[in-house]
Amino acid sequence: MRIIVDGMGGDYSPEEVVKGAIKAARETQETIAIIGPEKELSKLLRKHSCKLDNIEIINASEVITNNETPALAVKKKKDSTIVKAMRMLKDEEADAFVSAGSTGALLSAGLLILGRIKGIKRPAIAAWVPKIGKTGTTLLLDCGANVDSKPEYIVQNGIMGSMFVKGVKGIDDPSVGLLNIGVEAEKGDDLHKQAYDKLMNSSVNFTGNVEGRDVISCDIDVVVTDGFSGNIFLKSSEGMSLAIMGRLKDKMSEGIAAKTGAFLAYSKLKDIKKEFDYSEAGGAPILGLKAPVLKLHGNSKAEEFYYAIMKAVPYVENKVTETITETVNKNKKWF
Amino acid sequence: MRIIVDGMGGDYSPEEVVKGAIKAARETQETIAIIGPEKELSKLLRKHSCKLDNIEIINASEVITNNETPALAVKKKKDSTIVKAMRMLKDEEADAFVSAGSTGALLSAGLLILGRIKGIKRPAIAAWVPKIGKTGTTLLLDCGANVDSKPEYIVQNGIMGSMFVKGVKGIDDPSVGLLNIGVEAEKGDDLHKQAYDKLMNSSVNFTGNVEGRDVISCDIDVVVTDGFSGNIFLKSSEGMSLAIMGRLKDKMSEGIAAKTGAFLAYSKLKDIKKEFDYSEAGGAPILGLKAPVLKLHGNSKAEEFYYAIMKAVPYVENKVTETITETVNKNKKWF
Repeated sequence: MRIIVDGMGGDYSPEEVVKGAIKAARETQETIAIIGPEKELSKLLRKHSCKLDNIEIINASEVITNNETPALAVKKKKDSTIVKAMRMLKDEEADAFVSAGSTGALLSAGLLILGRIKGIKRPAIAAWVPKIGKTGTTLLLDCGANVDSKPEYIVQNGIMGSMFVKGVKGIDDPSVGLLNIGVEAEKGDDLHKQAYDKLMNSSVNFTGNVEGRDVISCDIDVVVTDGFSGNIFLKSSEGMSLAIMGRLKDKMSEGIAAKTGAFLAYSKLKDIKKEFDYSEAGGAPILGLKAPVLKLHGNSKAEEFYYAIMKAVPYVENKVTETITETVNKNKKWF
Repeated sequence: MRIIVDGMGGDYSPEEVVKGAIKAARETQETIAIIGPEKELSKLLRKHSCKLDNIEIINASEVITNNETPALAVKKKKDSTIVKAMRMLKDEEADAFVSAGSTGALLSAGLLILGRIKGIKRPAIAAWVPKIGKTGTTLLLDCGANVDSKPEYIVQNGIMGSMFVKGVKGIDDPSVGLLNIGVEAEKGDDLHKQAYDKLMNSSVNFTGNVEGRDVISCDIDVVVTDGFSGNIFLKSSEGMSLAIMGRLKDKMSEGIAAKTGAFLAYSKLKDIKKEFDYSEAGGAPILGLKAPVLKLHGNSKAEEFYYAIMKAVPYVENKVTETITETVNKNKKWF
C-alpha cells in the first residue's frame, strides 16, 4: 500500500507534514510518499535523520493555494501536489491521498481527475464531531461539498458514512441519524422530510432525526444532512467550542486567584479542551471519489498528519471505496 | 400601554411568571396583565404581597401544552391563555404579549387570530446570540418559523430585524449579515446566493456573508437566514455552549485540587458562563405579526420574564410593528 501525503498543504507545511509522515512510517509497514519539491523535502528528511525504507518523496514543483479558483488552478497547474497525487490515484500508482491543502482544489481535482464512484451522484465531505462526556466521535456529512442537495444525495451520504465508519472504526451496521430541527418524523423542510422517508426505506440503520444540540451528545455513529446545513452546524459548534476555550484561557490568567485556580485545575481543564477538540479525530474524508482522499484542517501539525495517515491505512485495507461502490450499485432503487 | 404575560407558559409557571411580572411592574408605569386561572394567580399575588396598581389578572381557564398539535389546539381551546391574549391584541385591548408557552401554538395563534403585517410574506422567530468578548448581542432570524424559505423572506427578515433592533436597542441603521458557508459573494446554495443579491439591492445596511463560526464574534447587529439553517445554527451553538459549561462544572468538582481551583477562579468562571449565556438576553420576538409577541424559553424563570417584559415596552413605545409595516409597503419592489 502506498499513501501519498501532500507536502505543501496547510499553514505549517512542509516541516510538520514531514514530521507527521515520519511518525506514521515508524508505526506502519506501508509506504508513505510525501509529494512536493524534492530538494526541500529531502533536506527536511535529513534534518530529522530519517532513514526509513518505507518513506519516499515524489517530486511536484507547483502548489495550489487557497486564494486560487479551484477548477482553474487544477486545469493550469499540472505539476501541483494535488493534481499529481490525484493522477497517481487514478493510475493506481497509489492507494490514498492525505492533504491539508485547499478543499476546493481537492474537490475539483477529485471530480475532474480521479472521478466519482459509479452510481454516486455527489461526493461529500465528512467530519468527525466529538462525543461529549463519552468516548468516540460521530461522523457528520455532508459538510459543504454540495450545498444544493437532493433527498437521494442525503441517503447516499448515509450509505457512504456507514461504510466508512464500519471500515475505519470496525463498527458493524453503524447507526445513522438525520440532522433536523426536531425529532418528530414530520419535522423539517421538504428536503429533510423526503430524505427521512427515503432513509426509512433504505438498508441504512436509520434511527431518526437528531437536533442541532444533540449531535455532540447522541450515541449515533453517523449524522447526515445537506452540505449547507452541515457546514453551518460544523462551523457554529466548532466555533463556539474554540471561542469558549479561548475565553477560558484569557479569563483564567486575569489576576493571582484565577491563575492559581487554573494551575490547580490544570489537568481537568486540559481534559475538557481535549474532549471538545475537533482536530484530534484526524482527517475529513471526501467520500464518493474513486479512491480514499482525506482532507485536514489548514492549521494541522505533525500529530494531525500522523493521525490522518494512520486512518488512511484501514480505509484502504478494508476496501471502503469498493464496498460503497457495490452497495450503491446493488440498491439503485433508493435513488 | 398594556402588556399581557402568559401566566401558564413554561416549566416554572405560574409562580416564576408572577414573580417576574411583579419585578417588572415595580420598574415600569405600564400595565402588566397576567393571563391564566384567576384564583391561582390571585393567590400568588397575595403570597408575594403584591399591591401594585399596574398589575392585573385576565382570567383564562385553558392552557395549550407542548404536546398538542398547535393549529388544532388553537382552534379548540378558545379560552386558553394564548388564544385569548392574541384575540385581545387583535381587538387592541392590549399592546404586547410575552409567553414561554408552545412556539407552535404562538405561531399558529399569531397567524390565525392576530394575523400577519400586510406585505409581510412570512413571520420569523428571532433570537439573541451573545457576542463573545464584546458587549451586546446579535439578533438572528429566522430561527425556525419558516423552514422552506425564499430569497424574499430572507430580505424581509433583514428589514424586520433592523427595525426591531433599532426600536428596542436604539441602534441607528443596524448592520445586517447573511449566514452563509463562506464570506465571498458567490458562496452558498441558490437560496442564499439570491438572498445576497436581493439584500445588496435593498435599503438594508447589508454587510455581506457571515460564517457559522463568526456569528458569535462579529460586530454585526442582525444576522439573517432561512428557518432551517437558523435553527441548526442556534441549537448547535447554544447546545455546544451548554455542553461545555456542564462539563466544566463536572470536571471542576473532581478532586480537591480542581475544587480549590474552581473556588479560586469562581468569579472568572461565572463571568464566562454569563458571557456565553443565551438566556439572559430576554425573549425571542416573533416578527411579522400585527402586534409584538415575545417568546421565552420553556425553562425561563422570574428574571427572564422580567427581562422580556422590559423589552416589550420599547418594542411598543417605539412603534416597531408600525415601522416594519411602512417600510415593507414602501419597498414592495424588493420582494
